[in-house]
This record gives sequence, C-alpha cells and structure tokens, in this order.
Amino acid sequence: MECTFVSVAPESDFPIQNLPFGVFSPSALADSPGRVGVAIGDQVLDLVALSQLGLFAHTAGLDGVSVFSKPYLNDFMALGRPVWRAVRQALQEFLSNDRHPVRQQVSGGNGAAVAIALSSVTMHLPAKIGDYTDFYASREHASNVGMMFRGKDNALMPNWTHLPVGYHGRASSIVASGTALHRPNGQRRPDPAKAPVFGPSARLDYELEMAFFVGTGNELGTPMTVEQAEAAMFGMVLMNDWSARDIQAWEYVPLGPFLGKNFGTTISPWVVTMDALEPFRVAQPTQDPEPLPYLLGAGAGGYDINLEVHIKPHECSDKSFLLTQSNLKYMYWALRQQLAHHAVSGCNMRPGDLCGTGTISGPTEGSFGSMLELSWSGQRDVALGDSGITRKFIEDRDVIKISGYCQGNGFRIGFGECVGQILPAKQVGPPKHA
Amino acid sequence: MECTFVSVAPESDFPIQNLPFGVFSPSALADSPGRVGVAIGDQVLDLVALSQLGLFAHTAGLDGVSVFSKPYLNDFMALGRPVWRAVRQALQEFLSNDRHPVRQQVSGGNGAAVAIALSSVTMHLPAKIGDYTDFYASREHASNVGMMFRGKDNALMPNWTHLPVGYHGRASSIVASGTALHRPNGQRRPDPAKAPVFGPSARLDYELEMAFFVGTGNELGTPMTVEQAEAAMFGMVLMNDWSARDIQAWEYVPLGPFLGKNFGTTISPWVVTMDALEPFRVAQPTQDPEPLPYLLGAGAGGYDINLEVHIKPHECSDKSFLLTQSNLKYMYWALRQQLAHHAVSGCNMRPGDLCGTGTISGPTEGSFGSMLELSWSGQRDVALGDSGITRKFIEDRDVIKISGYCQGNGFRIGFGECVGQILPAKQVGPPKHA
Repeated sequence: MECTFVSVAPESDFPIQNLPFGVFSPSALADSPGRVGVAIGDQVLDLVALSQLGLFAHTAGLDGVSVFSKPYLNDFMALGRPVWRAVRQALQEFLSNDRHPVRQQVSGGNGAAVAIALSSVTMHLPAKIGDYTDFYASREHASNVGMMFRGKDNALMPNWTHLPVGYHGRASSIVASGTALHRPNGQRRPDPAKAPVFGPSARLDYELEMAFFVGTGNELGTPMTVEQAEAAMFGMVLMNDWSARDIQAWEYVPLGPFLGKNFGTTISPWVVTMDALEPFRVAQPTQDPEPLPYLLGAGAGGYDINLEVHIKPHECSDKSFLLTQSNLKYMYWALRQQLAHHAVSGCNMRPGDLCGTGTISGPTEGSFGSMLELSWSGQRDVALGDSGITRKFIEDRDVIKISGYCQGNGFRIGFGECVGQILPAKQVGPPKHA
Repeated sequence: MECTFVSVAPESDFPIQNLPFGVFSPSALADSPGRVGVAIGDQVLDLVALSQLGLFAHTAGLDGVSVFSKPYLNDFMALGRPVWRAVRQALQEFLSNDRHPVRQQVSGGNGAAVAIALSSVTMHLPAKIGDYTDFYASREHASNVGMMFRGKDNALMPNWTHLPVGYHGRASSIVASGTALHRPNGQRRPDPAKAPVFGPSARLDYELEMAFFVGTGNELGTPMTVEQAEAAMFGMVLMNDWSARDIQAWEYVPLGPFLGKNFGTTISPWVVTMDALEPFRVAQPTQDPEPLPYLLGAGAGGYDINLEVHIKPHECSDKSFLLTQSNLKYMYWALRQQLAHHAVSGCNMRPGDLCGTGTISGPTEGSFGSMLELSWSGQRDVALGDSGITRKFIEDRDVIKISGYCQGNGFRIGFGECVGQILPAKQVGPPKHA
C-alpha cells in the first residue's frame, strides 16, 4: 500500500501503514484547544475537515465532525475497535486511491485545509488523562534498581515474577513533548546518619518508557480478561517518566514513589494504534513461574519496538549523544497482562487512562533505560560520545529526547519524538515562621 | 445566628453555621447529572434557582446560573476563597433575615423550587476528581500497621516523622455514599512458603478517613507555601478507603498499594467548607523532630472533628454497632502540611483534586480506624455489642457507615453520612488458555 496523496520519505515515522492520532492546533492558533488529526509523512490530516467532506459517512457509530472537533481523543477512544479500524481503513483508502470520491473533491478545491504541514502545527496532549498508572515490567530494570535501593539479596521482590507490579501516578503533571519542566525541590537524606535536607534534587533522571492508552474501559466491579484487555487498548506513545532519585529514595518506603515522580511526565503527542503495531508482535520473554490463569493469553504478547534516548547537554546544545538503545520486546510483563491485572480487582478503566510500562531496560549496559542504571547510582561517569562531556545525572538545561520505531519491509512505524528540557528549580517562598 | 427560612433541629448536621456544598438531582431525575445545592436542616437549597432570583447578583466574579448549573463543584472551587465566603455570607443572610429581598420574592411565590426536601434528592459525587492522593498522617495508624506488616522494629519508617508520607490513589473508582461495591478479586499469598493464590479478598477492611478538596491550585513547577496551601483548601468530606489487606500485603513492596485499594473509595456527598470548620481548629500533636521550614505554619493546624464508624452486619442488618470512635485532631500531620508537601516538587494541584488523610486512629483501641487494627491483623474477634456477632474483617453484605461532626455551642457542624455496602465478588471470566 502506498500513499499517493502526499509523498512520504522512506525514513518517515508516519507512512500510510502508521496513521497515528493526535490533537493539534495550527501554530497561529497555538493557544486554541485543538482538534483531532492523523499524521502522514510531513503532513497532518484534519479529521474534522475530512468528516465534513463525508469520508466517514458510512462508518457506523461515528459522528466525525463532533468527535474529531474535541481537543482530546477520549470520545473517539470510547467508540471501540470496530470504529477505530473503520476510520483507519477509510483513511488508507483515501490516501492510496487517486480516484477516491473525497480525493476528487479535494482536488476540486473543496479540501484546501485537509492537510497541514506538520512543521506548522502545535501538538497537545492527545487525551484528557483521567488516571495514570505506571508499571515496573522490565526484569532488567527492576533488578538493577532493586540492587541499588535494597541490595543484591532483596533486588527482585518475591511478588515480582507473579504479578506486574504497578502503582498509581499523577495525571495532572503529564505534559506533551516539548514542554520544559523545572527541577523539583524536595526532601532528601544524602547522609543516612544525619537529618534530611531540603532543596533541588541532585539526582535527576530520565526513564525510557512507553505507555498505552486505554480505549474502551470496564465497569467498576467487573474485571477484564487478558483477551478483553487486548481488545480495549487503543494505542501507544513514548514516555519519559522523569524521576528525582534522591527524593524517591527517601520517601518511597512504604507507600511508593510520590514527589520523586509527580513533578512531570512527558509523552509523545502522536498515538500509534495497536492496529498499526499488530504486524510487529513478538513473543515476550519466557515467564517462569507460569503466571496465574487470569494473566495467561494466547499468541505473542510482546512488541518489537526499537527505542533510543539521546541527550543534548547544556554545554553543547547543538549536539545529540546516544544514551540508551533498547527495545520494548525485553519487557517481561506484556501490556495486556498489565491491563488485565489492573482491572482484576474491579478497578474501572476509562477511555483515555494511561498506563506506563516502567523503564524498558535491556540485558546490556547500553540498553539501560535510566541514568541511575547507566551511572550505577552515580558511581561512574557516563561519557557522552567523545565530547569529553560526562554525566551521572541530568543537569539544568539538558534536553532528553526519546524516539522509537518498528522496522517494516521498506517502511517504519515511528512514534515521533518525546522531548523535554529540565529548567532550574524554582525557589520555594520563604516560610514566614522558619 | 439562626435560620428562620426553615426550622433546623439542634442535632441536625446542617445548621446555618455549616452550609455544605453538594451536587444533587431531584429523585425523579436521579439519572440526570445534577446541579449545585447547599444543605440546610432537612432541605437542599437550589443554588441555580437562588442565582436566578439574584441572590448572588453582587458577588464579584461569580456567574451563579452558569457555575451552579454544572454537575460538579470544580468551577466554583476554582473561584477562590473570597467568592466562597461571599456566597456563604449571602446564604446566611438569606436564611436568617425574614426581610431579605429574595425572601420576599420566595414568599411571593417566585421561589417554590428554592428548597427541596433532602429525603427527595439523589446525591452525586461533588466534583470531577482529577487526581486523588492518600496520605498516612496518623502516627497511631502508621505505627499499628507498620508493626503488623513489618514487625515492631520497622513499624515507623525513618522518613515518617520528617514528611507527610502519601501516595497517588485511583480517582476513577471514587464513589458517592450509598454506592455498593463488589469485593475485589486478586492475588494473595496466605502461606508465605507456597505460591500465591487467586480469588476474592479474604481480609476486606474499611479505613476511617477524611479528605479535603483542593479549591484553587498551583501551576506546574510552582510550589505552594503552607500559608498558600491553607488558603487553597475548599472543604472536607468523610472517606472510607476500603482496603483488601491480603492483596495489599502481597503487592505493596516496593511501589506501594495498588489493587488492594483501587476497587473503590467512598466519600460523603456534602463538602463542609474550611470556613465552616474554622472555629474548630485546635493544636495538632507536637511534632518532634521539628519539620523542615517549608512545612511550618502559624496558628493551630488541627481540627476537632468527632468521628464514628458503625457496622450493620449482614446477619442483622436493622441494627448498627459502633466499631470506632476517633477524632481528626489526633492526626500528626496537618492538612496544610500535606498539601504544601504535595506541591513542593512543583506538582500541580487542580480544583477538585482530593487528598485523603489516611486512617485516623487514636491512642486507644476503641479509636482504631480499621478492622486490621481492631482485630490486630485477624488475631482476635471484634464483638459487635452484645449481639453475639463478631468480625475480624468485613463480610459480604455488611454495611459500613462513617459519620462525623464538630460540636459547637448549641449546634453541630455535621458531615452527613458516608455509607457503603460490600457485595460478593464477581467471577472473573474463565481464561481461554489456562
């Protein structure tokens, strides 16, 4: 299948096989709430305009003008896989068929605003995220961090191989790629023999993650099977789960990470659908012991998605240096297992809820998905290429960029970019009664 | 000050000194999304109707018809304390002054629907809760639970006296009082020498908590001082943080409670404002060591709120038995400290965000706020009065009711009820590939 509507470079993240959904505003209206679009090559298709031209007139259950006029994908996500697939198919036919009736209208001058240059739009968060959950599904990452936080003998807890460990995160501070974040202030205890101190985090980190959006959800009190979970997932984004390791280490026992995480989480703005990722399914790592029956599913549970993290250090911000090369396929717990586990208590999942995978570290040092692991808790310098610059953790004004793609035969299913810069901490107002 | 608009019984939860805000529908329209009302005696004042009669015509910054027509309080919460206070004052004048011009209109027949019997309305969740956080702020509860989960030597972690420990909870499963919940399924490991098993929780518990709603929030990256936090709080509700202790114990290390909590959280529907609670401020327990300066505030940080938990056991559901008598004043970490700590990382708080206190246990056994503590982890039976019925944990079809009030001079500031029944667990669909 080839796109004949616009030309798509072979290395583009957004060929006709991809068609990720996002929320955009033309740059002149960057402050406007946005509408739903689909990326193709270096263009954005305006789904409101295409709805008005009748492209989805035969898609049962979809009022395109209404659903795509919203500045979030939640309403579309709630419609379910048959509608998602019908829209995907209608778009592929429109893009590949020169004689498509809507193409005729566009070339006849009715569709000037159907496609807009990607370079001229502002991207927003793709959904109103009701709840955000983060898992801890990479065995390599959990083992590495466990070793550093709790010692070798307690690295992987006894529950870890029996269930996908997860925790509730903060939804309000999830931002779209490109939003700068301030280094957090907080309590930390650099010297365990002394009292804790207050100030900006001295061990700020990135975490290479991906995340899936829940499409259709479940009623409170009604669990989902693994099969239902698989059918409920809408699509995926890249995610940087910024972490303040010193704040986290001091606060996290016994109720888990809190301020060490909630100052900001960055996601890429284009949601790549599970349908686009379907050809890239691969077996997940062998699970031993076998999980309980409610976590078992048929067929391949993993996805072969190449992932990279680059840093632009503040000392030379025109250059990027590779920090991590990893792959989603290393992840021990499959996405569908994460979601089925999440809902097994009866917890209700809603359209637009976001679930992060946890840091996706691989088996080798070059595939470690965080500075904590790369610098082994700050014990060694990480060299940035041959620049002479080194890092143990992220410094002010550093930029971290995550990218990812599935390699097809002559095309790539890419995720665009997940970029964020760390700004200096803001001062906390002087307390009046200190 | 006395209400002359309707008669208010001395033991009523809702005298003129209270005026809690909530979202209601007339029972005939129970499925409608609701609108904002205020409780007085056994009546609900319809704030849309009162806005239409001009009661808030002179309240700067408030479009009453628009703000109170919403089926949530978020828009009102966002307006800030000067508006909250102006509305409270306007309502008190209307209720206490027979010659109030709006009273004249009502008695002239223009306001038939201004007051509706509480018994004839359906109450909804008071707000769209964007994020929900739960703290762990009672020293007695943290010590009791810590002893049971980690042994005497690790009961209170080193961080506990330095910061208000908290964690992110699940917002989607917060329900209004009266909503029945299903017992959760999940993994637990009753025998630590054996593999975990799956099934309905066998150690289902309540937690006596209160929670505050954030009114005005803060921008991402910008912390709040303790003073700003105090000014930002809108009001409080009662909360039952249902907990499945066996699921929680198996899953919670290292990332905190997850499925052991996210199957449901019940709150009372009437939000008692911080302004109504102001006369009941008391000193909080002495904090030793002194917290870091960003957690210090002037004046009394605690609130004297009497709290009770009753159970209606399934064996005799027409009788209530007292389980717990406690008081918010026992809480070690003040509400304003919780909120200032939450935002110190730069985490953005939004109107309608909910923060729970954690279980409010007092120093004596009768004041323990959970079955876990009362039955000391199931080691002893808790007798329900002299009925001969006992409990270690909550059984199917039991009803738990939390109530609370501040005792004024001749009146009570009450919170209404926070009631929930536990229904049997739903079966999880048989996995196809077990």
